[in-house]
Amino acid sequence: MDYQAILEEIQEEIQPFLSQGKVADYIPALAKIKKEQFGLSLTLFDGTNYSVGASDTLFSIQSISKVFTFTLALKFFGPNLYKRIGHEPSGNPFNSLVQLEYEHGKPRNPFINAGAINVTDALINYYGSEELAYAEVLEFIRSIADDSSIVTDELVAQSEMDHGHRNLALANLMKSFKNLDNCPQRVVETYFRHCAVEMNTKMLSRAVLYLANHGEDPITNKIYISAQQAKRINAVMLTCGHYDASGDFAFHVGLPGKSGVGGGIIVVVPKKMGIAVFAPGLNEQGNSLVGTMALELFAQKTGLSIF
Amino acid sequence: MDYQAILEEIQEEIQPFLSQGKVADYIPALAKIKKEQFGLSLTLFDGTNYSVGASDTLFSIQSISKVFTFTLALKFFGPNLYKRIGHEPSGNPFNSLVQLEYEHGKPRNPFINAGAINVTDALINYYGSEELAYAEVLEFIRSIADDSSIVTDELVAQSEMDHGHRNLALANLMKSFKNLDNCPQRVVETYFRHCAVEMNTKMLSRAVLYLANHGEDPITNKIYISAQQAKRINAVMLTCGHYDASGDFAFHVGLPGKSGVGGGIIVVVPKKMGIAVFAPGLNEQGNSLVGTMALELFAQKTGLSIF
Amino acid sequence: MDYQAILEEIQEEIQPFLSQGKVADYIPALAKIKKEQFGLSLTLFDGTNYSVGASDTLFSIQSISKVFTFTLALKFFGPNLYKRIGHEPSGNPFNSLVQLEYEHGKPRNPFINAGAINVTDALINYYGSEELAYAEVLEFIRSIADDSSIVTDELVAQSEMDHGHRNLALANLMKSFKNLDNCPQRVVETYFRHCAVEMNTKMLSRAVLYLANHGEDPITNKIYISAQQAKRINAVMLTCGHYDASGDFAFHVGLPGKSGVGGGIIVVVPKKMGIAVFAPGLNEQGNSLVGTMALELFAQKTGLSIF
Amino acid sequence: MDYQAILEEIQEEIQPFLSQGKVADYIPALAKIKKEQFGLSLTLFDGTNYSVGASDTLFSIQSISKVFTFTLALKFFGPNLYKRIGHEPSGNPFNSLVQLEYEHGKPRNPFINAGAINVTDALINYYGSEELAYAEVLEFIRSIADDSSIVTDELVAQSEMDHGHRNLALANLMKSFKNLDNCPQRVVETYFRHCAVEMNTKMLSRAVLYLANHGEDPITNKIYISAQQAKRINAVMLTCGHYDASGDFAFHVGLPGKSGVGGGIIVVVPKKMGIAVFAPGLNEQGNSLVGTMALELFAQKTGLSIF
Repeated sequence: MDYQAILEEIQEEIQPFLSQGKVADYIPALAKIKKEQFGLSLTLFDGTNYSVGASDTLFSIQSISKVFTFTLALKFFGPNLYKRIGHEPSGNPFNSLVQLEYEHGKPRNPFINAGAINVTDALINYYGSEELAYAEVLEFIRSIADDSSIVTDELVAQSEMDHGHRNLALANLMKSFKNLDNCPQRVVETYFRHCAVEMNTKMLSRAVLYLANHGEDPITNKIYISAQQAKRINAVMLTCGHYDASGDFAFHVGLPGKSGVGGGIIVVVPKKMGIAVFAPGLNEQGNSLVGTMALELFAQKTGLSIF
Repeated sequence: MDYQAILEEIQEEIQPFLSQGKVADYIPALAKIKKEQFGLSLTLFDGTNYSVGASDTLFSIQSISKVFTFTLALKFFGPNLYKRIGHEPSGNPFNSLVQLEYEHGKPRNPFINAGAINVTDALINYYGSEELAYAEVLEFIRSIADDSSIVTDELVAQSEMDHGHRNLALANLMKSFKNLDNCPQRVVETYFRHCAVEMNTKMLSRAVLYLANHGEDPITNKIYISAQQAKRINAVMLTCGHYDASGDFAFHVGLPGKSGVGGGIIVVVPKKMGIAVFAPGLNEQGNSLVGTMALELFAQKTGLSIF
Repeated sequence: MDYQAILEEIQEEIQPFLSQGKVADYIPALAKIKKEQFGLSLTLFDGTNYSVGASDTLFSIQSISKVFTFTLALKFFGPNLYKRIGHEPSGNPFNSLVQLEYEHGKPRNPFINAGAINVTDALINYYGSEELAYAEVLEFIRSIADDSSIVTDELVAQSEMDHGHRNLALANLMKSFKNLDNCPQRVVETYFRHCAVEMNTKMLSRAVLYLANHGEDPITNKIYISAQQAKRINAVMLTCGHYDASGDFAFHVGLPGKSGVGGGIIVVVPKKMGIAVFAPGLNEQGNSLVGTMALELFAQKTGLSIF
Repeated sequence: MDYQAILEEIQEEIQPFLSQGKVADYIPALAKIKKEQFGLSLTLFDGTNYSVGASDTLFSIQSISKVFTFTLALKFFGPNLYKRIGHEPSGNPFNSLVQLEYEHGKPRNPFINAGAINVTDALINYYGSEELAYAEVLEFIRSIADDSSIVTDELVAQSEMDHGHRNLALANLMKSFKNLDNCPQRVVETYFRHCAVEMNTKMLSRAVLYLANHGEDPITNKIYISAQQAKRINAVMLTCGHYDASGDFAFHVGLPGKSGVGGGIIVVVPKKMGIAVFAPGLNEQGNSLVGTMALELFAQKTGLSIF
């Protein structure tokens, strides 16, 4: 398949929609991002990369980081992790407190905010401190992306904290149910630092190869997690990766993916490739509007689908 | 792969658990089913069937029928169907009224009860009467199973009706939101007749081949729906096929499936085969306990997974 | 106090607001009511009646009937009634299914629809048939109003039934929780016949005297219920009489009352009088907009308040 | 009426129940309170006090403080207060986040935790600092109780803070909806200091006289609030004073009251007296079990009721 031609077709077809959607505006650092941007990359198992558009532009990976922290927590805690976090779709927005209260402080899955904060808490337990938990997650991201230049935008992290009262509410609620071990404030700070990691679509499409290849990086042959764990992460991405639009994404794209409010989406094509897209205008569910559209076009044009 | 050997291994391994779970007891006709039963079948694209246990025993397909009615409704109405029914996981039990009220009478997906009742209403519109909607769905099931002996247990259907007040509540609630066109009582009766169709695992594993083969029956070459529609039905099965245990099934089995309270589960292995299992003891979410276990073992032993 | 003068003042002050609000339009029979109507009556313990405006105009008492059916059910079943119905404010709209599902089919109080339907079911048990339950409630209303001319508008009752799917949903949901003994359809029919009783403000202000006088009619000296029961009915009116505007009514009017979507409100001034108002334009919570206003003015001008 | 004799009768009748209920155990400082205690006081408008039992024993007034902070907020902000806090019963436990999320951060009423935290925030705005808001509320309590010895148990306040994650969740959630002006942590600290004020039943029964006497202290003739404001506070106590047992309290006691998890309840008898009871064993809704019982007995024996 001529992937480069397909990506270019997609780039052309999405142009009319680039002005749609709404850039995340809950913090100044994100609100100032220019909406009319689009980058799309895919990386094959031999490292070949195809890209169009703003594929070198760094952006805040935001909730995409949840896939990486979940990977580490699943690796270190295995099934014990499920005592504190479920793996069911929530059927609710990403930051709802309702289900968390009804279910006694146990988040539905690791990809809603409460779940990712809880995963961060588990990693702080594992590494022994907030600082180490932050540093080791960053190190892991650099490793899977094979790029040591990746850093956090600390200004974004700080800005999140200044406007992060709902996440603090989630963390305090879990703490009140004794399902959070560390200081809610510091856990949320650490979580925000992971969210504020900056990457581009080239880096991201390469970083998810270990998930497409059953836990093993197909280029470096590093084994990060077991095949079963990789499949399970993909399953959670498919059922829970897009909040209350997860079913819609599975329906229209048919591939495991995870979005972030920074406008990025990663997608895993099992046994084939990693994909990443960037387009900052968000739809009502908080997922990249043009990014979702581009991935649906990609699925149509290539016939790639797990179904 | 020696499928027969694998099925036999599974049959042996699940023996200790056959006494667990609880047979559906909300109607006498189902409550009297013997719990210690187990049947497992798979059918390949060339028609080869592998089976163990009670694979000839007929049972009530119950909610598995939702896959077949959804197939017809999607075929006839296409995207217009989404005006009345969503395709998101509900995060709630199969018969919850809460979400239906919050979302103004629009069911989350076609695989919760409200959704399937709504699909039945759409089919009554299409066929022109309850009787025809019932008959044509039965005819469709006979066609995909290639077995004209399949019938409804009318006693079960009647018994459901006598205890179907919650489903009547769902239908009346949708009617009050003007999201049901026909008489709630008669729509629910028709829905129950579809649920009371009796099949065995051999029939079911063969019947789902059209979903594994992108809409075309690989044996008869009849095209029932488009490739895209087949993929989408599989996607909805994966994200919504097991009520509030859908994420868990995706996590542990990794294949699209749909369960019924009669103890059956169907599973689609895209491009490979259809599977059906029968074991009447249910877990807390109302899915076959041993059936789920058997499918997880099957996924482990064969490595088959869409992820 | 010169009650007549006060009523006339109120009548004048509310004129500018008579065009506000929205007549109940869920059934044709109510939708055709002229909005610009206003009647206000009060009856003292010696039978003296003061009235202004359309105080002879008959209207559908609707949910005001819930006070009368609750009176009879409390009389016949005493504390046993609380096994099937609570007496807490619901904090929800009058016809919500959400709480009913969360609380396993037990309505919060007798003044939301589910509660009143449940009360009707209890009365059918007591009297032995739907027809008798209907007839005896009507007879009770005639007795407390001392007016044998009072009848039901059967056209309204039938029209309610044609559009009563939400109430049928409530009844079926209670039935599914085994908290309804009779046929949901017939219970709801009986309930609607009570709602369709027609009275005017003169009749209603006289009819509630037994509640103002601790269970005894101050004119005929008939004892309908015990003093404690009368106080409790007043308490439930205060905390639950206006759905999710009950707190607001207590806050602004400070007297026990009950509204109906026909535009009527009854109010009890303990040890002093009965009051009834009629103005068909409803506010957002489904209570008479001008009626509520008139009662607030009355409370301000007279200083009458239980607080 | 021989109030002293009535109080003594009640004291005797409740003895068998003193071992029931459960002392609040969410913080060590409250968990160590001896359960078998009972104090009951009433104060008439001329200052006459009748008391039995542990009426000199100081206890943590906890949520009773919400009545006093609401009084000041209503006095200073009038109807503007309703922009940030409602006055409807919640139909939910005192510390639920569910309704707060559904209603966009606006607490249902000032007597659930979210509402009282919000009131505290308003008072911090008014007084200009947390410290002043704390001090002025304490000063107000001393004034209405006419007792300058009243102080806060700072150990209890600190202990609350150490276990106050749910309240921090509520405050952060309101902050995220921009319905809290000050730092959530500091607002909650101030709120907890008010809750930790220590009083006995003699003090409390005297302190609420201004509410029984339409805003004016009947002994000192100080006017604290308007008659209308006093009536409205009483109305909110009646409809919302006992969380999700408010209807039950109105039903059985028939008087405006407010409970605290320290085991205290205050009650207002309009135009007659103030009452306070203390018994630390709580019922399931978090209200004093024996205290509620004693007040129901008092209502029965005296016939006092607003209904």
